[in-house]
Amino acid sequence: MSLLQGIAASSGIAIAKAYRLVEPDLSFTKQTIEDVAAETARFEAAMATSISELEAIQKVAERELGAEEAAIFTAHILVLNDPELINPIKDKINTEKVNAEHALQETTDMFISMFEAMENEYMQERAADIRDVTKRILSHLLGVKIVNPSTISEEVIIIAEDLTPSDTAQLNRNFVKGFATDIGGRTSHSAIMARSLEIPAVVGTQEATRQIQDGDILIVDGLTGKLHINPTEELIAEYEAEQQKFEAQKAEWAKLVNEKTMTVDGEHVELAANIGTPEDLVGVMNNGGEGIGLYRTEFLYMGRDQLPTEDEQFEAYKKVLEGMEGKPVVVRTLDIGGDKELPYLQLPEEMNPFLGFRAIRLCLEEQEIFRTQLRALLRASIFGNLKIMFPMIATLDEFRQAKAMLAEEKEALVSAGEKVSEDIEVGIMVEIPSTAIQAELFAKEVDFFSIGTNDLIQYTMAADRMNERVSYLYQPYNPAILRLVKMVIDASHREGKWTGMCGEMAGDELAIPLLLGMGLDEFSMSATSILQARSQIRGLKKSDMAALAEEALQMGTAEEVVQAVKEKLSFITQ
Amino acid sequence: MSLLQGIAASSGIAIAKAYRLVEPDLSFTKQTIEDVAAETARFEAAMATSISELEAIQKVAERELGAEEAAIFTAHILVLNDPELINPIKDKINTEKVNAEHALQETTDMFISMFEAMENEYMQERAADIRDVTKRILSHLLGVKIVNPSTISEEVIIIAEDLTPSDTAQLNRNFVKGFATDIGGRTSHSAIMARSLEIPAVVGTQEATRQIQDGDILIVDGLTGKLHINPTEELIAEYEAEQQKFEAQKAEWAKLVNEKTMTVDGEHVELAANIGTPEDLVGVMNNGGEGIGLYRTEFLYMGRDQLPTEDEQFEAYKKVLEGMEGKPVVVRTLDIGGDKELPYLQLPEEMNPFLGFRAIRLCLEEQEIFRTQLRALLRASIFGNLKIMFPMIATLDEFRQAKAMLAEEKEALVSAGEKVSEDIEVGIMVEIPSTAIQAELFAKEVDFFSIGTNDLIQYTMAADRMNERVSYLYQPYNPAILRLVKMVIDASHREGKWTGMCGEMAGDELAIPLLLGMGLDEFSMSATSILQARSQIRGLKKSDMAALAEEALQMGTAEEVVQAVKEKLSFITQ
Repeated sequence: MSLLQGIAASSGIAIAKAYRLVEPDLSFTKQTIEDVAAETARFEAAMATSISELEAIQKVAERELGAEEAAIFTAHILVLNDPELINPIKDKINTEKVNAEHALQETTDMFISMFEAMENEYMQERAADIRDVTKRILSHLLGVKIVNPSTISEEVIIIAEDLTPSDTAQLNRNFVKGFATDIGGRTSHSAIMARSLEIPAVVGTQEATRQIQDGDILIVDGLTGKLHINPTEELIAEYEAEQQKFEAQKAEWAKLVNEKTMTVDGEHVELAANIGTPEDLVGVMNNGGEGIGLYRTEFLYMGRDQLPTEDEQFEAYKKVLEGMEGKPVVVRTLDIGGDKELPYLQLPEEMNPFLGFRAIRLCLEEQEIFRTQLRALLRASIFGNLKIMFPMIATLDEFRQAKAMLAEEKEALVSAGEKVSEDIEVGIMVEIPSTAIQAELFAKEVDFFSIGTNDLIQYTMAADRMNERVSYLYQPYNPAILRLVKMVIDASHREGKWTGMCGEMAGDELAIPLLLGMGLDEFSMSATSILQARSQIRGLKKSDMAALAEEALQMGTAEEVVQAVKEKLSFITQ
Repeated sequence: MSLLQGIAASSGIAIAKAYRLVEPDLSFTKQTIEDVAAETARFEAAMATSISELEAIQKVAERELGAEEAAIFTAHILVLNDPELINPIKDKINTEKVNAEHALQETTDMFISMFEAMENEYMQERAADIRDVTKRILSHLLGVKIVNPSTISEEVIIIAEDLTPSDTAQLNRNFVKGFATDIGGRTSHSAIMARSLEIPAVVGTQEATRQIQDGDILIVDGLTGKLHINPTEELIAEYEAEQQKFEAQKAEWAKLVNEKTMTVDGEHVELAANIGTPEDLVGVMNNGGEGIGLYRTEFLYMGRDQLPTEDEQFEAYKKVLEGMEGKPVVVRTLDIGGDKELPYLQLPEEMNPFLGFRAIRLCLEEQEIFRTQLRALLRASIFGNLKIMFPMIATLDEFRQAKAMLAEEKEALVSAGEKVSEDIEVGIMVEIPSTAIQAELFAKEVDFFSIGTNDLIQYTMAADRMNERVSYLYQPYNPAILRLVKMVIDASHREGKWTGMCGEMAGDELAIPLLLGMGLDEFSMSATSILQARSQIRGLKKSDMAALAEEALQMGTAEEVVQAVKEKLSFITQ
């Protein structure tokens, strides 16, 4: 047995077999072969294995994911049986005396370029099929394994260097019990996704993909950040007990699912959830979310080959609005660029992507993308309580431009006879220092603010939170950050508006007392954090927290603030 | 004739021949040769040309740059006459039947690795000599030209893709009349350097290196950003007249060289200069600088193979302090990292270098580098009026750590019997939003602030100023920026401290009225801007500007602010 120490990213304990989600190395060199017959036989064997593998996957997919998702594998089997593709490969082996890998790649590359050049969606999909099938045959020729997480059919713990949002979208949640990654911190995408999926996770282990083999038994301890590899029976038993204790604590919190979030002195705040897809609603309901404080619409745009249509978007937004049954749903318009890329948009590489062309900056320029989303949102608005929020607003000009486009699209829809809700609130993310500093001017023009602490902290401290050498400067409790937060909340209240927070800080035990004290109206977090936060807030007195926050604002360093909060909390729980 | 439009980067007009400062392509492929005698002759011819070229350069360098600088070329000539290096190359051509380029490169690579492996400074320098000589011989074998700007001996206009600080340091200022680059903006290094050297410059022409040949006649119009290629006689005559007008205006300003910078209502502000090397002092004196507001010490570390020694630094600091004859000299400690690299430090690549491991962050970790600089500064302090300033301070902790190291080094020096000035002021750059927001706490612990607007704007607006797609957000007049500036100035005054500004904004005609109105104490700019700024300030009434600034702080957008300033200024000059 061995132990890796990482960062606790999502609480809970998981015990299961390892499943390595690692891109295989499919590289090869061109070779001249002597024995044409043997090479052809090798190619045919790889074909046969690919076909039977696809048939098996297709069955699992049909059972687990439904007929629609499984159809793609049927298409792949058809490609493998197409003599127009297969014969030229065999010919090439025969006449050019090259290895099967080379013959395969040369031939399929030609078909792919040909199909891709056609201005026809059907042909473009065929190109994608051929690409996938080529990878599969290559894997068998080279004897390496390709992974297909969507067809996992037993309980596993995923091991990966890092998980991208599209990886996570493909995971079959019924079987993925936990995950562990090599890189990342508490605020990396992997970590945020783990919390939203309620899956225990440890990130930043450095070594997981190197030290763990498929099938190793693992314990993911999402409470302390430990990852045990092939543990003893005793340790497993200990962790099973721990797991039960954690479940008992969760059961205790679960009693609060239909309770209001009310402080000891009778003040109410709203606890909302951050979500990425309509599928996340189950978790929000199960955890007593009073609304959606952040619907990240990026996932609609990811893991695909082209922009989502207006109707596809409309369906997703409608599903979320209906699912929330009249509770508020704050939808953030597309926040792409920076570290979140869309391959089909072909954005230029930037020297400092976090200070670059992203989110509203991109939307104001690529107007057709933006306006399509706005129309989908407006059309969906009648199905619930929609609030629209623009990300990365740095100047009043940008907000005014975005709002004007929304008004134009609304007018056009209404003229065309479409129904649109009359009371959609329009707000902004406050995640750039300039906007916090001018909050009192913005407050006159927006309906609400939502503070995005992940970015606000990184810009205010001029430190990339993903860069380990300066991550010491990613300080949520730094009094400079608290001052900006206070400025924003006060500005909104003076104009009768409200302020929420949808960064990681909103669900943080040590930050909640300060935020409550500063008058934050809405706390939006991973659904799984809601009940714990509710339990905490129901034990706090808002007026006491206001006094604590006042002190903190005058302090010099983050350490002093943390110290003061801890003292206050330990006094309360005594 | 043709015309390129760029960005006016440094005012004035230059008319001269083009000199392309472009890295030559010295790539080649290994070839088998038949005629060994011919190949050896080709090699010997390249050697002979290299030697006579070096002798010529050596003479020019001795005349223009002095014996010390010329010695390097003498060393190169010695290398070329060394049979231990030359014979193995000829042997290789002879026995391996390879082309001269290949034989040369293989042989010199071996010598270079051998010398570099020795822990001996002399041998390392020999390795550098061999590398330079190899480039020269290769250039003659391949028939391409290598450039050597330090030996320019006639009036030229430099054409380059971009100029790095080390390129600029090598330029012979007597002959470089202007320059034009393909990339960059008003705040790029090239532009800042041009202003500090008082050389007219146009940057960001996109096309200059592609469209211009060596020897083309050029007009660089640093007032409007135009670059004329092979202009007509008429146009040259027009520009000569323009040049005279500009010189006349400068002569008018020159009368203010010994005047105080006093507003109409009798308030004094200090106009200081930003410098990069002791050589810049001449310009500061000629332009009536009342001090050095920013001495960028990076240049001491650039364009070399290893860190400067404590003594080398001491000499440079001493030279500047003595040269300023008791006037204040604010020295910024090493600000390296981000876009400013030092090859010999081997810093890891970062995803967002502007939010990365740089300046004080690096110095607090790489303490030996930092402490060496601090010791050199402390030892030099007795030769003038030294003020030490730390860059990129984001937290009180960082300032306290840096200050503690300074105190430790001072104590150690004093114990060792060294003399150190007793009244060195210690301040910080304010260029990170968190620091501006907590200015009133910093003001209790620092002796002064200097606002670095270039970075402050880019972090506050979360926009990389070098990234063209978001450069619209680089807004010095944005009211959010003005609010931070005001916060810093007010905080310092409440504690009886002073605030300067050393970003580009301090020398900007439209910003000066606002900064004066907000109470800025010291304006530090390119030396060449000082007299114009003095002339402007002597026409302004501080109390009027205070009212103007108050209005600007309440405005919503940068456009409104610019409009208000322009109206006020046109009213004054009427």
